[in-house]
Amino acid sequence: MTRAALPAESPIVEPKPAGTEPIRRVPPAEGVRLVDVMGGAERLEVRVHDHGFVALVDAMPRLAPEGQTADAAIVQAARVSYGQGTKQVSEDRGLIRYLMRHRHTTPFEMVEFKFHCAMPIFVARQWIRHRTANVNEYSGRYSVMPDRFYRPSVEKVRRQSKSNRQGGEGPIEVGAAERFLEYLGASEALYERYTRSQEEGVARELARIGLPQSLYTEWYWKCDLHNTLRFLSLRLDAHAQEEIRDYARAMWALIEPLVPVTMEAFRDYEMESVRLTRLEVEAIRSGAPGIDSTNSRERAEWESKRRALGLDPAE
Amino acid sequence: MTRAALPAESPIVEPKPAGTEPIRRVPPAEGVRLVDVMGGAERLEVRVHDHGFVALVDAMPRLAPEGQTADAAIVQAARVSYGQGTKQVSEDRGLIRYLMRHRHTTPFEMVEFKFHCAMPIFVARQWIRHRTANVNEYSGRYSVMPDRFYRPSVEKVRRQSKSNRQGGEGPIEVGAAERFLEYLGASEALYERYTRSQEEGVARELARIGLPQSLYTEWYWKCDLHNTLRFLSLRLDAHAQEEIRDYARAMWALIEPLVPVTMEAFRDYEMESVRLTRLEVEAIRSGAPGIDSTNSRERAEWESKRRALGLDPAE
Amino acid sequence: MTRAALPAESPIVEPKPAGTEPIRRVPPAEGVRLVDVMGGAERLEVRVHDHGFVALVDAMPRLAPEGQTADAAIVQAARVSYGQGTKQVSEDRGLIRYLMRHRHTTPFEMVEFKFHCAMPIFVARQWIRHRTANVNEYSGRYSVMPDRFYRPSVEKVRRQSKSNRQGGEGPIEVGAAERFLEYLGASEALYERYTRSQEEGVARELARIGLPQSLYTEWYWKCDLHNTLRFLSLRLDAHAQEEIRDYARAMWALIEPLVPVTMEAFRDYEMESVRLTRLEVEAIRSGAPGIDSTNSRERAEWESKRRALGLDPAE
Amino acid sequence: MTRAALPAESPIVEPKPAGTEPIRRVPPAEGVRLVDVMGGAERLEVRVHDHGFVALVDAMPRLAPEGQTADAAIVQAARVSYGQGTKQVSEDRGLIRYLMRHRHTTPFEMVEFKFHCAMPIFVARQWIRHRTANVNEYSGRYSVMPDRFYRPSVEKVRRQSKSNRQGGEGPIEVGAAERFLEYLGASEALYERYTRSQEEGVARELARIGLPQSLYTEWYWKCDLHNTLRFLSLRLDAHAQEEIRDYARAMWALIEPLVPVTMEAFRDYEMESVRLTRLEVEAIRSGAPGIDSTNSRERAEWESKRRALGLDPAE
Repeated sequence: MTRAALPAESPIVEPKPAGTEPIRRVPPAEGVRLVDVMGGAERLEVRVHDHGFVALVDAMPRLAPEGQTADAAIVQAARVSYGQGTKQVSEDRGLIRYLMRHRHTTPFEMVEFKFHCAMPIFVARQWIRHRTANVNEYSGRYSVMPDRFYRPSVEKVRRQSKSNRQGGEGPIEVGAAERFLEYLGASEALYERYTRSQEEGVARELARIGLPQSLYTEWYWKCDLHNTLRFLSLRLDAHAQEEIRDYARAMWALIEPLVPVTMEAFRDYEMESVRLTRLEVEAIRSGAPGIDSTNSRERAEWESKRRALGLDPAE
Repeated sequence: MTRAALPAESPIVEPKPAGTEPIRRVPPAEGVRLVDVMGGAERLEVRVHDHGFVALVDAMPRLAPEGQTADAAIVQAARVSYGQGTKQVSEDRGLIRYLMRHRHTTPFEMVEFKFHCAMPIFVARQWIRHRTANVNEYSGRYSVMPDRFYRPSVEKVRRQSKSNRQGGEGPIEVGAAERFLEYLGASEALYERYTRSQEEGVARELARIGLPQSLYTEWYWKCDLHNTLRFLSLRLDAHAQEEIRDYARAMWALIEPLVPVTMEAFRDYEMESVRLTRLEVEAIRSGAPGIDSTNSRERAEWESKRRALGLDPAE
Repeated sequence: MTRAALPAESPIVEPKPAGTEPIRRVPPAEGVRLVDVMGGAERLEVRVHDHGFVALVDAMPRLAPEGQTADAAIVQAARVSYGQGTKQVSEDRGLIRYLMRHRHTTPFEMVEFKFHCAMPIFVARQWIRHRTANVNEYSGRYSVMPDRFYRPSVEKVRRQSKSNRQGGEGPIEVGAAERFLEYLGASEALYERYTRSQEEGVARELARIGLPQSLYTEWYWKCDLHNTLRFLSLRLDAHAQEEIRDYARAMWALIEPLVPVTMEAFRDYEMESVRLTRLEVEAIRSGAPGIDSTNSRERAEWESKRRALGLDPAE
Repeated sequence: MTRAALPAESPIVEPKPAGTEPIRRVPPAEGVRLVDVMGGAERLEVRVHDHGFVALVDAMPRLAPEGQTADAAIVQAARVSYGQGTKQVSEDRGLIRYLMRHRHTTPFEMVEFKFHCAMPIFVARQWIRHRTANVNEYSGRYSVMPDRFYRPSVEKVRRQSKSNRQGGEGPIEVGAAERFLEYLGASEALYERYTRSQEEGVARELARIGLPQSLYTEWYWKCDLHNTLRFLSLRLDAHAQEEIRDYARAMWALIEPLVPVTMEAFRDYEMESVRLTRLEVEAIRSGAPGIDSTNSRERAEWESKRRALGLDPAE
């Protein structure tokens, strides 16, 4: 698989394949120098929890004109769509913000990231539900699973939320937390029996099934920017499990330096935006004290938005 | 959510939505009676292993002209593609077989199945890699996981294959199998601590992470026929883990009565077909004893195909 | 392809496939009668423009318990996800509205529609950009394209918008409209040369390339409800071309009677919702007269939302 | 959007985002020099037909260790899947060939290409059916379509095939070809009326609909290697329209230098492979003169394969 890099000198370098025209090499415009948006690194890595990590291992574009970020690829693609039409929206930042505000999502698909990640299986199972991504996961059928398990610290053991059936909230009292961690310890201790089963000849694909879901796995995960933002939007949400939110935060930290303009727009128009329902719009218009709904949950959501907007009905 | 079924009498039934034409109701052709391809059942279910199942809970088309199968929807879609061009290929079975042979896959996407399945988490993790499907899984964050674990019988505990790094082969000796099952028993016994953790207030989303991957989960899984065939092709393969192959077999059993013509073609042109590589084609043409490769694995594959084809070079 | 419908009497009907358990037939619950959500129709069709149409030709679920709509399949799928957790959200309508409000989109993927549509090629080219759908299109390579072209009425010939580079607005003066329609007439007249080329033996796949993009094509288009709503959201938008909006309106009219609860929620939480950006939220909170942006477009958008909300800064 | 490239010196460069660990920069292994797989070019372009082109504008990986090709990213991803299991398959070329032979397609999804292409609309309509790709197309709503149309040379005007309903074969007689080209000329002449309509104020989105399908459009098209190979496999097929085959050939020529090991395997195991159906396998095994089918088309296909394999039944 060795091959010299394409020589940069000649305008026509490849042998003419049967029936096709020759390949014409177009160099960057005079004075443009392409630089690595990852600064020459092989990987940029953020540790998560005890044994996890998210590492950015590649990006498209990997090379950008010096002085620009990977945001440039979004602008490049948008300009082909809108052709001369974008002359008016001449500033790049304005264009990216316009695209984000108006759900023109396809130019954001023109940027791609590849991550190498390690996470517990219960996190991996939430993550994999994002279907528009490419994945290669470590296989417990081919290979021995390493002896690595997620165990939260005592203060991170959360109490079952009463208001939110799917979530946890606040730390639990220390005794209960410690008994929970003992239980995790007992589940991790099964690793010894996993090992022994394999020594006795049991197929790896079976031996692993007694190991707990806190076991770490790892994968390469490749995703375009639009779908990465979808992942962040859903997995940074207050309803997502705390552990996967930690992974989402790491992912954000890694990509923000590469596409800073996009991430700023994403913050302004998505993450920190507020969506008002038809009922809420009507309540604001009419000055009514509440929305026209008997659903207590929906009413509570409106109260919370109303407060966030500083719209007090009393005054 | 109650609503009377659309009345069948009037040719125009819906109020004209603003700016649209009225809805015109076209009845089936004279003499055609639509019947339920699932025979009036709410679900058709096949048990798998100790606590698992695959159940067909819906199909598109659900109603087919009496005397026809759901294969009819494939023909219907193909005929719009090929228009008058399909008059010559006038027989339906011939058309379906032609489509399958020539990789015209889109008409097979016009049939859809919905399954309700229960399977161990390690099986679910392989299954979910098929991305072109719709899934709703039971959530261990919202709800308590029931006390159900997969445990193979002694004779189903497989030995690690030597030739196939990812697989198991044949039963292991009884002593080792029993020690493996004891280990599974120990992992299942953690269920009691899972319960206790919840009683002490630990969030369900955390409490579950000490439970083993043999724990059963369940989901609705909806997939078109083309992608269901892809699933079957990959998960019935000899390299797939035995447990998921059992699920694939159940799925096949459920859909075969609904699309018998397609499944026959799938068997003839995919499952029981043999693909010859360029090297193998050349070996057959030239009558050479082996293929032109130094790769021992590739050579062994050729030997195996050669024998399957009854092409003995020596004689 | 003839096969008797599955007999409804016996609990076990299929021959046991090798290695699988028998198929168990589960009838609907006592007293539940399944009825066709399409009211026995083969298709429900809405005419669009001069030669176009959208026809609903199948739905999943096609059969629903009498007195219910296809919305029931969303609830069924959601309840498997949320298990016992949904006991509290006991009312179906409330559950569907909750799912829509909180972007729990997967249960909406459990409903599927199949449409037969005819539309001009320039509309088809916008439509096909929705990738999560199954499509079988009429082929101009296999078959002769029928002599059908889209031609708007004089009053529907739109003037280029000045504010919106991609759109049209209001009718143009009659003379210009008539000259435009003459031009379309000239493009349609090429059909005669298309026919003659074929008579002289030119391949259909070439002969068609001189026909204009106003030529009608047709296809089967199958899509789940979640992605159908995405289609509606984008194609009913004021920035979408008027012609495809007419198709979207027809699609809405066809599905609303089948999933009325979903469509009401979609209207309340998506179509008639207003999204406030971070800048707009801050302007409301602070009572500032405008948003903190120098972008004139963004400022104008805020003005328009402010008016819609009845939030006048001056008063 | 200006930003200095990430400085390469410090191991920790980014400010610590709230709640996340610092970013750790991992440099390439000692002695490894990363080089641009596109040899420093901004684009590598192949002309197609009169006004078309396919240009490779980016690749992931864009940087590879000196002496290696982009194939390296496939091996990297596969090794995470198979972990220690791949030690035995130690040679990279062997591993890639093994993956291709055994349909382990996910590692090939870890390579991504971005193309800029110009093609006639009738070609674009075939191309866009490949759904697993990202696309930004030039918009005739925003911008004026340039005056460029596809017109084959006289000798490229094909006769309708008699054996293949969807295809053309061999050149047609010159007179018919010339009359066909006259017809195309007439369709192109409408461009003047397109221009005039716009001058008179007709919206661009309408003015364009009278232009023929031979009009050129252009787009950015981004696709992973696995799906690019699917595109090539289907669009280089003898049943694909000649014009899109020319584009596929250009695409092949562009990517082959970047992933030469993959393309060799693709040729050996896919493009130049022969698939034998169950019926054909049985015919070979039994030495029967023909296959057990009454379908004349299927019998003819077998005859053609039999000849290709040099298996003459007579002798």
